[in-house]
Amino acid sequence: MALRAAFRNRRGVSGLLSQLSSCSSHVRVCVSPVLVAQQRSNSTSPKLKVDFDQSSGVAVMHMQSPPVNSLSLDFLTEFCIGVEKLEMDKSCRGLIITSSQPKVFSAGLDIMEMYGKSPERCGEFWKGVQEMWLKLYNSNMVIIAAINGSSPAGGCLMSLTCDYRIMADNPRYSIGLNETQLGIVAPFWFKDTMVNTVGHRATEIALELGLLYSPSEALKVGLVDLLVPEDQVLTTATQTMTKWLAIPDHARQITKSMMRKPTIDRLTSNREADVQNFVSFITKDSIQKSLRMYLEMLKKRRG
Amino acid sequence: MALRAAFRNRRGVSGLLSQLSSCSSHVRVCVSPVLVAQQRSNSTSPKLKVDFDQSSGVAVMHMQSPPVNSLSLDFLTEFCIGVEKLEMDKSCRGLIITSSQPKVFSAGLDIMEMYGKSPERCGEFWKGVQEMWLKLYNSNMVIIAAINGSSPAGGCLMSLTCDYRIMADNPRYSIGLNETQLGIVAPFWFKDTMVNTVGHRATEIALELGLLYSPSEALKVGLVDLLVPEDQVLTTATQTMTKWLAIPDHARQITKSMMRKPTIDRLTSNREADVQNFVSFITKDSIQKSLRMYLEMLKKRRG
Amino acid sequence: MALRAAFRNRRGVSGLLSQLSSCSSHVRVCVSPVLVAQQRSNSTSPKLKVDFDQSSGVAVMHMQSPPVNSLSLDFLTEFCIGVEKLEMDKSCRGLIITSSQPKVFSAGLDIMEMYGKSPERCGEFWKGVQEMWLKLYNSNMVIIAAINGSSPAGGCLMSLTCDYRIMADNPRYSIGLNETQLGIVAPFWFKDTMVNTVGHRATEIALELGLLYSPSEALKVGLVDLLVPEDQVLTTATQTMTKWLAIPDHARQITKSMMRKPTIDRLTSNREADVQNFVSFITKDSIQKSLRMYLEMLKKRRG
Repeated sequence: MALRAAFRNRRGVSGLLSQLSSCSSHVRVCVSPVLVAQQRSNSTSPKLKVDFDQSSGVAVMHMQSPPVNSLSLDFLTEFCIGVEKLEMDKSCRGLIITSSQPKVFSAGLDIMEMYGKSPERCGEFWKGVQEMWLKLYNSNMVIIAAINGSSPAGGCLMSLTCDYRIMADNPRYSIGLNETQLGIVAPFWFKDTMVNTVGHRATEIALELGLLYSPSEALKVGLVDLLVPEDQVLTTATQTMTKWLAIPDHARQITKSMMRKPTIDRLTSNREADVQNFVSFITKDSIQKSLRMYLEMLKKRRG
Repeated sequence: MALRAAFRNRRGVSGLLSQLSSCSSHVRVCVSPVLVAQQRSNSTSPKLKVDFDQSSGVAVMHMQSPPVNSLSLDFLTEFCIGVEKLEMDKSCRGLIITSSQPKVFSAGLDIMEMYGKSPERCGEFWKGVQEMWLKLYNSNMVIIAAINGSSPAGGCLMSLTCDYRIMADNPRYSIGLNETQLGIVAPFWFKDTMVNTVGHRATEIALELGLLYSPSEALKVGLVDLLVPEDQVLTTATQTMTKWLAIPDHARQITKSMMRKPTIDRLTSNREADVQNFVSFITKDSIQKSLRMYLEMLKKRRG
Repeated sequence: MALRAAFRNRRGVSGLLSQLSSCSSHVRVCVSPVLVAQQRSNSTSPKLKVDFDQSSGVAVMHMQSPPVNSLSLDFLTEFCIGVEKLEMDKSCRGLIITSSQPKVFSAGLDIMEMYGKSPERCGEFWKGVQEMWLKLYNSNMVIIAAINGSSPAGGCLMSLTCDYRIMADNPRYSIGLNETQLGIVAPFWFKDTMVNTVGHRATEIALELGLLYSPSEALKVGLVDLLVPEDQVLTTATQTMTKWLAIPDHARQITKSMMRKPTIDRLTSNREADVQNFVSFITKDSIQKSLRMYLEMLKKRRG
């Protein structure tokens, strides 16, 4: 809704994103007609590549934000605009989300957005995370996650919002909401999304221990729906999409909304409180200290 | 409740059903004492055959409405009266529901009741569907589904209301809430019943895609509890019933009510709105067109 | 709270408990330095033996109330005080609950507390059962059940409140909420705890039939998390605890609370009504008669 004004002339938001300071409901985008004219059905941008096939009605969104598709505020902004754009295009019925980065689908929330930042900035960031979840979980499109790499934390959340999850059967990859391992906590709507997918008990144990599952474990617990060899993830996603699009849109959309509305309503009626809760938690000295230690550990590993 | 007045002299409603124009809450049945006297423990009627064994306290209800036990308003009316009758008979503790028609348990809601009918008639029909669900899901009896054939849509719903589901292990049979495949939508209480049985995620994917499961798939997902060879469905149901009736009725009934009451309350407190919702949906031009195409497709298949 | 009256004079957890006027959150303990010096990390009492290892932060609670660790009011009182004591000790981060009695973890609620007792006494008893559940399900500690024997009814409930359940792989043992088999009913919070663990449908069938599961069946349905040979139950629990304690306490505790708070709130906001409900049910003539028959059956077996 909020972003609709931005898209009276659709397609080709790329290059404009540096003007965005947020993807919250107060965003204003000044669309350049020239760029729009230049970039019809494919849009390319630093962090996202969208291929939309008009004939099939299916878009493929390649996340290409080096090195690991971290969900920074910039990335989230571009991502939300990209999804919104497809959502408003009635000819687009299905969306496949995948990664162009090797070995990783998305590494999840960008820790740099949570470390040493002002409360205001943290709040803007969190609104972006909420917005991503709302756009995906509430979408009228069929969304399939083609998980061709590891997908921890926010990357797992992104996958969980989709209608179907296909993962590369590579035992070096993992997926899960592992927030507690970093000393932080998955909020209620992360939890709700996981409970809706794997049930209460599997969620309880996964979130308390911050479990990361191998693909075969993830399949067993229901965190993903299908495993295929790595080079077949995208083709299988395309084939699976055909099956989903054989169902009349209106019946599928009403059904999807019926299944998800109570969960979505819980966040939409608590958005501001959830932002406040996140900001007051993440800006605590003890949590900032945890994040610093984690970042130093990462630095040592790389060094 | 509504039907209770009709049964001061119970047993033997057969032959009276033609006087019923509805199983809604306004129904009035004039019971003929003569017929009642003639037909003690077995009642036979065009659409239903009930065998009640006083010694075991178990009734078997054979659905025999050719060709496929479609849930027409007439069928639902007779079915609800039959269940109500057994419910009020304190000597009847268990009910087994099965089919006399070959290859099918029940084909579900009769499409002819939804196509080209007045809003009033559609509303009466939907009240009948609600009534069937309420009678079965809220029953004090142990109810076992002996699913000896395919059981799509409303047939699946009927099975889901039971305490236990035994299905013929015949790979040509299928079961599921496949409404979306026809362009229509399972309402929230169909959904609630399925979530209570197989959980949120399995329901989401099943309802969005309108999945029909083979018996072995249905067992795996939890849609049925047991598979046996086709000729043993009814005998196994009888043996299983013995195990259930070994539990003291009052403890089992309180427990059953505790498990199901929130789901039942959701419909009873929204019945009228649910009827309005169904009527306004099903009488839409686009939905009527979908149904016409489906009916024409069926006609061609048969022709 | 409920247990206060019970503790005016009572056997002591380490001889100090006679000074306790309550095990509620307002408890005040006047610690005797002499006794404390004498009994550092171990406390012994008739019904409970607690070994607390300061270095690991893990306490092991051995239930040793012959013959079968029945949950009498005395046992519950001592148990709640023991848990509360550990809960308040910030150096105690984990608790393992196990049995010193052969072949049984806990036989569940003591029927003698429910048979032939005054309504007042039944009410006190039930408050004790509530208190046990609240202390365990709401604990900030990691609690692991080391189930080294059968665990029916209240023993199963106790296990279900833990964070993780490890059971002896001995086919002669069983676990389950089998109340209906005795003609009594598991209340809504027993049911809620089980639904949170194994889901709605498995709970419905288990509670209606009063099912007792073998260890392998219990693992399959999710009632326990791990089976190990009988002599490895406690060592495995200790190893598992290490894994749980590797997670930062604050993040794990917030997560646990998020998962369990709605269930806990349902009881805390309905405690008094739940007591009244239990008392009016259990003091019914018909229920007392059921219990008398059950006790006579037990007597004959032993005799």
